[in-house]
Amino acid sequence: MKTRAAVAWKAGEPLTIETVDLEGPRAGEVLVEIKATGICHTDYYTLSGADPEGLFPAILGHEGAGIVVDVGPGVTTLKKGDHVIPLYTPECRQCKFCLSRKTNLCQAIRTTQGKGLMPDGSSRFSLDGKPLLHYMGTSTFSNYTVAPEIALAKIRPDAPFEMVCYIGCGVTTGIGAVIFTAKVEAGANVAVFGLGGIGLNVIQGAKMVGADKIIGIDLNPAREAMARQFGMTHFINPREVENVVDAVVQLTDGGADYSFECIGNTQVMRQALECTHKGWGQSVIIGVAEAGKEISTRPFQLVTGRQWKGSAFGGARGRTDVPRIVDWYMDGKINIDDLITHKLPLERINEGFDLMKRGESIRSVVVY
Amino acid sequence: MKTRAAVAWKAGEPLTIETVDLEGPRAGEVLVEIKATGICHTDYYTLSGADPEGLFPAILGHEGAGIVVDVGPGVTTLKKGDHVIPLYTPECRQCKFCLSRKTNLCQAIRTTQGKGLMPDGSSRFSLDGKPLLHYMGTSTFSNYTVAPEIALAKIRPDAPFEMVCYIGCGVTTGIGAVIFTAKVEAGANVAVFGLGGIGLNVIQGAKMVGADKIIGIDLNPAREAMARQFGMTHFINPREVENVVDAVVQLTDGGADYSFECIGNTQVMRQALECTHKGWGQSVIIGVAEAGKEISTRPFQLVTGRQWKGSAFGGARGRTDVPRIVDWYMDGKINIDDLITHKLPLERINEGFDLMKRGESIRSVVVY
Repeated sequence: MKTRAAVAWKAGEPLTIETVDLEGPRAGEVLVEIKATGICHTDYYTLSGADPEGLFPAILGHEGAGIVVDVGPGVTTLKKGDHVIPLYTPECRQCKFCLSRKTNLCQAIRTTQGKGLMPDGSSRFSLDGKPLLHYMGTSTFSNYTVAPEIALAKIRPDAPFEMVCYIGCGVTTGIGAVIFTAKVEAGANVAVFGLGGIGLNVIQGAKMVGADKIIGIDLNPAREAMARQFGMTHFINPREVENVVDAVVQLTDGGADYSFECIGNTQVMRQALECTHKGWGQSVIIGVAEAGKEISTRPFQLVTGRQWKGSAFGGARGRTDVPRIVDWYMDGKINIDDLITHKLPLERINEGFDLMKRGESIRSVVVY
Repeated sequence: MKTRAAVAWKAGEPLTIETVDLEGPRAGEVLVEIKATGICHTDYYTLSGADPEGLFPAILGHEGAGIVVDVGPGVTTLKKGDHVIPLYTPECRQCKFCLSRKTNLCQAIRTTQGKGLMPDGSSRFSLDGKPLLHYMGTSTFSNYTVAPEIALAKIRPDAPFEMVCYIGCGVTTGIGAVIFTAKVEAGANVAVFGLGGIGLNVIQGAKMVGADKIIGIDLNPAREAMARQFGMTHFINPREVENVVDAVVQLTDGGADYSFECIGNTQVMRQALECTHKGWGQSVIIGVAEAGKEISTRPFQLVTGRQWKGSAFGGARGRTDVPRIVDWYMDGKINIDDLITHKLPLERINEGFDLMKRGESIRSVVVY
């Protein structure tokens, strides 16, 4: 079949809208009509050429929602008409990782996904007979896409696509880091470094579970108002205090119980660790650092009880937890609407990237 | 009263045996006759002058066992004749740290303890009218010592002092890191970096809780035999493999579930983290690094699910857990006898330091 798609031909160049060829789903695969997709920093990271593992030409996009149009042989858990969110972190429920009960990082299709291919080692996308690569197993910048059954979360049919697509990455990454990775408990004090889309979702996750102080840290004073709306109780602008770590320690009588780095800056990751409470502070790295950068601290920080960990896709198991987060949105427990600051047709997708680069959007969504 | 004690007059000099003056216990304090004390690397660290917080003149020693001789006003949980192990990490059961249920690092008397003083800000030791400092709140290199009630674990009276004194530091530090800090579960694969006294206790802790592979790593091939006796199943000499991290990953089909650094080398701390399993590996720093040294890694190691933590006194709550570990020894669940390689009278305490420096002892114990 034919489908409209935004194609990334090479690093550093804008996407172009093409009508590409899409093969039908093979065994274990599903054809999905994407109804909406967010534009995420990770798409830009790849498109910019900064991602050393980026491959071209490819169809980017990993934060979508849509409807099942067709299923390949052997698909048993999805059928035509089901509403789904594609998962760049699949959940096979069979591999060592899924069965460990300790991680969400299913490795069932990791190798082929990393190469921009479906699990059988081939691509479903092509143009003029030449293959185009998939991206993160999702390629939601195409109106129709093919994804493995294990990489699709079935969600309730009354959830609006242009809102819940954000659960495919940003919402889950932020809220999940609080709930699944750190397991923040009611009454805890939380510090959030970076008040972009991920940071705001960390904040609303912390509010949802009953955290006491929710301290937001950002260089941009314009971020304060929205962060307060999402549950932030205290704001620190690093330019206005002598030392960010000391400021958090003072606000929390000894340090935050949990901290989250939502920027990708290794210096901030150190601050985030060191502002946590002696004895039990946990710091969670969410942001993706530049290739080659390293984190450092004195081992004394850990020996005196702080823990350093990280979170990918919020520690969420996609097929199990994403439908629950959709429920939380539909039940009004979390706010997505105010985070979707821009909606665009596919033809204007490059504008969405520009808005993000200029820091003018929280999240732009392409609505097909 | 008078008591014999080994006094550290200044950094870098041998201890001298003196007859010093010891005041009786004040409110909340207890007078203990020390029957045996281990000689630990931490004593040497302070005596050598490397510890930036070391103070002189002082009576060192923090790994003792003895009998209560007298109690000060207000002491309710101990009485004359009780057998006790002094605790450099006290357990007041009242402070924010004790009540958090998340740490063993009671802070009730931290400030005065760090200054070599009893909680009221004074010392009980003196010589010729000049005060001598306490050390770690314990000063077990004195035949009689005074310690706060909250810094004494009451143990069963049939436990031999010259063995269970080692539970006052090394045994608990190693076994506790496995059981209380990492909470290693049966079937887990464990990597232990450094096969000195702490490493051997980590190994027997891992064996006690039913670990599968227990991999020991040490540059000294002479350490292999005893480590196997304590439960090590595989030995890696870093000089005999191309890459220690790869060697552990291969032995464990992806990485150790838990690793322990028992040396104090920041480069090894990095290896210990990076040899753990993607998704859930936990690395615990036990060794004390040189002042100023830092640990580093790529944040990707944490974002893909590894956790970096540390352990002090094995995460054990002294008054609660030390008596249980004494029971484990008396029940034959752990082996201390083979770790006590040398016994010396107080007069030969400097020989114990020499044996340790030359790597010829696992543990030397002074028997009064």
